Amino acid sequence: MSNGVKGLAELSCPTPLVVRDTILLGHGSGGTLSAELLHDIFLPAFQNPELSRLNDQAIVSVNGSRIALTTDSFVVKPLFFPGGDIGSLAVHGTVNDLAMGGATALFLTVAFIIEEGLAMDVLRRVVSSLQRAAADAGVKVVTGDTKVVEKGKGDGLFINTTGIGVVAEGIELSADRARAGDIVLLSGPIGEHGIAILAQREGLEFESTITSDSAALHTLTAEMLKASSEIRCMRDPTRGGLSSALNEIAAQSKVGIELDESAIQVREEVKGACEMLGLDPLYVANEGKLVAIVDPAVTGKVLAAMRSHRLGGQAQVIGRVTAKNLGLVTMRTQLGTTRIVDMLAGDQLPRIC
Amino acid sequence: MSNGVKGLAELSCPTPLVVRDTILLGHGSGGTLSAELLHDIFLPAFQNPELSRLNDQAIVSVNGSRIALTTDSFVVKPLFFPGGDIGSLAVHGTVNDLAMGGATALFLTVAFIIEEGLAMDVLRRVVSSLQRAAADAGVKVVTGDTKVVEKGKGDGLFINTTGIGVVAEGIELSADRARAGDIVLLSGPIGEHGIAILAQREGLEFESTITSDSAALHTLTAEMLKASSEIRCMRDPTRGGLSSALNEIAAQSKVGIELDESAIQVREEVKGACEMLGLDPLYVANEGKLVAIVDPAVTGKVLAAMRSHRLGGQAQVIGRVTAKNLGLVTMRTQLGTTRIVDMLAGDQLPRIC
Repeated sequence: MSNGVKGLAELSCPTPLVVRDTILLGHGSGGTLSAELLHDIFLPAFQNPELSRLNDQAIVSVNGSRIALTTDSFVVKPLFFPGGDIGSLAVHGTVNDLAMGGATALFLTVAFIIEEGLAMDVLRRVVSSLQRAAADAGVKVVTGDTKVVEKGKGDGLFINTTGIGVVAEGIELSADRARAGDIVLLSGPIGEHGIAILAQREGLEFESTITSDSAALHTLTAEMLKASSEIRCMRDPTRGGLSSALNEIAAQSKVGIELDESAIQVREEVKGACEMLGLDPLYVANEGKLVAIVDPAVTGKVLAAMRSHRLGGQAQVIGRVTAKNLGLVTMRTQLGTTRIVDMLAGDQLPRIC
Repeated sequence: MSNGVKGLAELSCPTPLVVRDTILLGHGSGGTLSAELLHDIFLPAFQNPELSRLNDQAIVSVNGSRIALTTDSFVVKPLFFPGGDIGSLAVHGTVNDLAMGGATALFLTVAFIIEEGLAMDVLRRVVSSLQRAAADAGVKVVTGDTKVVEKGKGDGLFINTTGIGVVAEGIELSADRARAGDIVLLSGPIGEHGIAILAQREGLEFESTITSDSAALHTLTAEMLKASSEIRCMRDPTRGGLSSALNEIAAQSKVGIELDESAIQVREEVKGACEMLGLDPLYVANEGKLVAIVDPAVTGKVLAAMRSHRLGGQAQVIGRVTAKNLGLVTMRTQLGTTRIVDMLAGDQLPRIC
């Protein structure tokens, strides 16, 4: 930055001391390395206003309509897990990315990359689950593609879903709209999806099965937007967890975010698994939760709308937006100290979605 | 079929004698096995009118606008080849699928699945080529996604591009619109992309380098549509080659298609390579050619428009649509005999796009 002050982009995405010349697993983590890739390679190449807002969806104008677009590839391993599978996840992830922009999802495209030798029955089960999830979320799969790669050149099945939706006039949700004084809301307990996947993958057994929270959040966001249009932005804290979602908002909005640890819920069994595995739930992926930044004047209305929805029954105020510590997320711990909640640096849980 | 006549779907997509219980490379070929997968698994699951027209793009209505959608994953090997790379191919393929529906491409989403260990420089070159191709084709990359899989669980780089475009009122191009008497036009010589990839992959040397024909065809299709709106349908004969594209049209339109072998151009070096490798150019992929079915009354106008465009300079009438041999493509050979041109059965050239 020309004024000599350490810039926000640098704070949230430090210049690497060692130039990385190959792709690491962490480049797909949703954390610091992903941000590096974005800032070093993708943003300079494709610079345009839609992309540089860094939302989970782009909103473009087509013949005067506001169309939302989002794309996601799913490489989750294993393909089936408690609470879902790669098919339902591929629908929920994309419907949610549209919902976070205030869009109503209308259509999906679906593209499969299949490894030679995949059992036909596995494909059939995944397709049927994907279709059910799409029907439940009110989106239509209108076109698709299938590619097959040789055995050993893929890993069973990868799915890309791209979603198209419409955004009503007057709705303006964007990660760069948070302002000092705003309130941070979280729709429920965190960490379930990541731990469910990890437990299934590693064959870990806990006292009770931990189930992914994978769900389509479009009706929850619709209720929230009906309660108030003074919502600044919403994010579903997937890869990189709650911490990465909030760090992105802090960086994009050039604000600080101060969390209250005691307000962030984590189910006992998830907490136990995290302790055992040395994981911090703030960095573990969710697939059916959202975080919202709202004008303080409407906090009550929005919170009530969330709590009256089955996917937001445990919604809480978890923090506030501040004019200090710009670009940073901090947390008042249960011990009364304050710590910085960084973005995820490496990749604690690869192939979680 | 209830009338006891062998149905068209059965003709173009025979019921397998042995039920296949695993995915084979041929399921990604664009030929018979791909059609099986479509008819056995995808169409029954996602049944809706947009999908069942089986065009390369779906045309949907959003707030009264006609929006075209198409998705494609690219798994081409090697990543760089004479005439292009996976980045430019991912743009051309998707822009062309939109153009074949008469759509003007507006926006692209791009999703990368990267194998851990890919050289950062390779990614940088691909992204820069993708961006150049997008700028040349007048489309904007507005949102994206990156996933990384472990070494040995991918193959360098896979790219999905999804394209969104608009279709003007009055344009109705669809594979089910061919009628007996229509004329079949082909924009130039065939087989170049497939042979260029194969030669590069296998380290084959020919007297002169064979270069992929990879190109964005949107300005060619625009000129053709300006010349006449009486174009029934257009297809870019990619995976599965000219034969598969025409077989799909014959099946969807319930017509016969009769080709004249002497009118189908194949460059000498491609012909030589095909003979050496035991390949039939009718089944080899193209990435910068199109086949169009047109009303006989406008053949001259459309052909002139094609020939005046740099990508259609060698356009030819290659056949006609008939009311006999319904669902079949036949060819009058240079020896004066007639043979059936089937869909590709296995996969003669995997990972060509």
